[in-house]
Amino acid sequence: MAVHLKPKNAQELLTIDGVQLFVGQAGIKKPDYNDVTLMVLSPNSRVAGVFTQNRFCAAPVRVCQELLPSSNIRALVVNTGNANAGTGDDGLKRARAVCAAVAEQIKCEANQVLPFSTGVILEPLPHEKIQAAIKKMKPVHWDIAAKAIMTTDTVAKSGSRELVVDGEHVRFTGISKGSGMIHPNMATMLGFIALDANIATEVLQVLVKEVADKTFNCISVDGDTSTNDSFVIVSTGKAKLAPITAAEGATYEAIKAVLIDLALELAQAIVRDGEGATKFITVDVQHAATAEEARQVADAIARSPLVKTAFFASDPNLGRILCAIGYAGVVDLDVQQVRVWLGNVLVAEKGGRAASYVESAGAAVMKQSDITITVDLARGDAQTFMYTCDFSYEYVKINAEYRS
Amino acid sequence: MAVHLKPKNAQELLTIDGVQLFVGQAGIKKPDYNDVTLMVLSPNSRVAGVFTQNRFCAAPVRVCQELLPSSNIRALVVNTGNANAGTGDDGLKRARAVCAAVAEQIKCEANQVLPFSTGVILEPLPHEKIQAAIKKMKPVHWDIAAKAIMTTDTVAKSGSRELVVDGEHVRFTGISKGSGMIHPNMATMLGFIALDANIATEVLQVLVKEVADKTFNCISVDGDTSTNDSFVIVSTGKAKLAPITAAEGATYEAIKAVLIDLALELAQAIVRDGEGATKFITVDVQHAATAEEARQVADAIARSPLVKTAFFASDPNLGRILCAIGYAGVVDLDVQQVRVWLGNVLVAEKGGRAASYVESAGAAVMKQSDITITVDLARGDAQTFMYTCDFSYEYVKINAEYRS
Repeated sequence: MAVHLKPKNAQELLTIDGVQLFVGQAGIKKPDYNDVTLMVLSPNSRVAGVFTQNRFCAAPVRVCQELLPSSNIRALVVNTGNANAGTGDDGLKRARAVCAAVAEQIKCEANQVLPFSTGVILEPLPHEKIQAAIKKMKPVHWDIAAKAIMTTDTVAKSGSRELVVDGEHVRFTGISKGSGMIHPNMATMLGFIALDANIATEVLQVLVKEVADKTFNCISVDGDTSTNDSFVIVSTGKAKLAPITAAEGATYEAIKAVLIDLALELAQAIVRDGEGATKFITVDVQHAATAEEARQVADAIARSPLVKTAFFASDPNLGRILCAIGYAGVVDLDVQQVRVWLGNVLVAEKGGRAASYVESAGAAVMKQSDITITVDLARGDAQTFMYTCDFSYEYVKINAEYRS
Repeated sequence: MAVHLKPKNAQELLTIDGVQLFVGQAGIKKPDYNDVTLMVLSPNSRVAGVFTQNRFCAAPVRVCQELLPSSNIRALVVNTGNANAGTGDDGLKRARAVCAAVAEQIKCEANQVLPFSTGVILEPLPHEKIQAAIKKMKPVHWDIAAKAIMTTDTVAKSGSRELVVDGEHVRFTGISKGSGMIHPNMATMLGFIALDANIATEVLQVLVKEVADKTFNCISVDGDTSTNDSFVIVSTGKAKLAPITAAEGATYEAIKAVLIDLALELAQAIVRDGEGATKFITVDVQHAATAEEARQVADAIARSPLVKTAFFASDPNLGRILCAIGYAGVVDLDVQQVRVWLGNVLVAEKGGRAASYVESAGAAVMKQSDITITVDLARGDAQTFMYTCDFSYEYVKINAEYRS
């Protein structure tokens, strides 16, 4: 059901010097299935990340938060099938046991390994199974790793970019997973991007936040913020480009732009593969008084089950969009000033339906599978984007049957 | 699909002295169908109400807000099939035209008539049709009025109470409608309660707010706050009980308790008839530091599509509840202290699954159609309740096909 989304083949994904990938089979949910992924980094790689704000954050998230940012990480290990969340102190022990197993295998310390888990919450992590799998990992390319981190995803998500800056080549490759429980800060989503530039640890920490705010923090499938969301950037430093030691300047901006472009592709891929999604919806809120206010309005539209079911039905029931704008919490909003477009069709102005609007024009836009809703609040200069999908029978089916 | 909800028959609903009810057929969405309801009040009735906070509030809501509270209202007129919302100044004119038609019919002024509309948003109100219907209304009892205000409701919602206080009888009868776009402040819901006590206008205004906060403002079907939500109390003053002139004292408290009991029945009936609902869920958040915080947590659980689809599937996927508690926005929440019960089964404590928990016990609770989730935050003395329902295939179907 994914909306305009195809998996990349191996040739489309660039190798990143300093990163080796492996997958293994722990049999967490089913046998003969790659459910463990290992990313081994060359020494002196820099790693920074942003993580879920959920107070019931998973044990692996707590471990990552303790260790990052860092220039001393040697490996990332990911398991699917179990989120190791809502598992208390016992969950922490099990996450560390997995890290220790990786450390033993690749000859480093346990605190040089970052754990990531995704899957069912509130069940003990079968760490012995993962430890056993770690002893029998197979080297793979990014396309197989992208597939191995999937849960309810239907399409593997990955992408590469190459940038020439200051006369040197910089390569970027990323993978992501997630299709349900997706909402800013952040999603049951994992995102990893590796690049071969040499970026100072403290700069990388600024960068990962800036990139996340324009990409992974702008997607919503169902409004639920997961316990396990993690977005991590690895900088291996193997490119010839001079080290980047400040979060400013043309080289920094060029790298940031590419990272945003790639992260946006990976984040939007999650929405395009949203559970049961049949439409990809961009919500563009313009001329808000503040970024916060723009976000409130975009969020209300992107979360509304009524808006999302109307998109599923290809029904230009635009009143539901106005309704969501109205309850978004902008308490002094003058609805007379608000204008709303569906695609490039002006549908609402002056507190009601636009005089020029005809339903056939709205219906024509609604039949498309990529649709933009534009809201002009006429209050200031702030703008934000949110990316979401529709709400279908299939969403309910997937989530009602997830554990069975 | 309604959960433990049956319509009342005529004998179960008490006549309220001072209120006459009528229904008519305007043919707004279909022919030969009662889609207009008129409630004519005796002179000197007191009326107060609470209304949606949606900035795109409907034209009739704006008219009611101008006129209430009041001791000068002579009629309430309700139409279904069209919400007269997102209709700008033209919508206001049409609402007033309907009021004028009622005024002409019952010989009063247009500003003594309150309009209410529910149905599709963003389409012009067919006021001529309603005006024509008003000339041909038929007297009915409360059971027929309860049916005439329904939209996607499957069961008419009504109830009566009788109270003996200070040796005098006071009678209460109410009706409500709503099944989708239901969320605090308030819902695509209309609620009306009439009682024959004599309550001073300013006291009635306090009372309606107090009652709404414990009833209609505690229900959530889909998290969408509608443009048209209205809850109104009418006090006809026909009972022999002495006038109530202050919002305090034993008589006031006795009447308030009965109003809350009745309004809660009417509000919960909306959830029980929630679009596609198969389960009625009470979320009880205890020992919060503040009422606001209790509300945040209850709200996050009641809104979560993941929690709601798990209930639909009778799947004790309790991690989704913990997850919702975790992202509710209580930033300093110590998850080690949180305890969660499903029915009377302790399912989570110390940041994870309770040691005593066995899945068969959770599964047994999940099979019931009335389920309580209790969350103890261990932070203070505040408590709140929210009432919600599950999320089913049927919800998507109803909302995808609403306008067709």
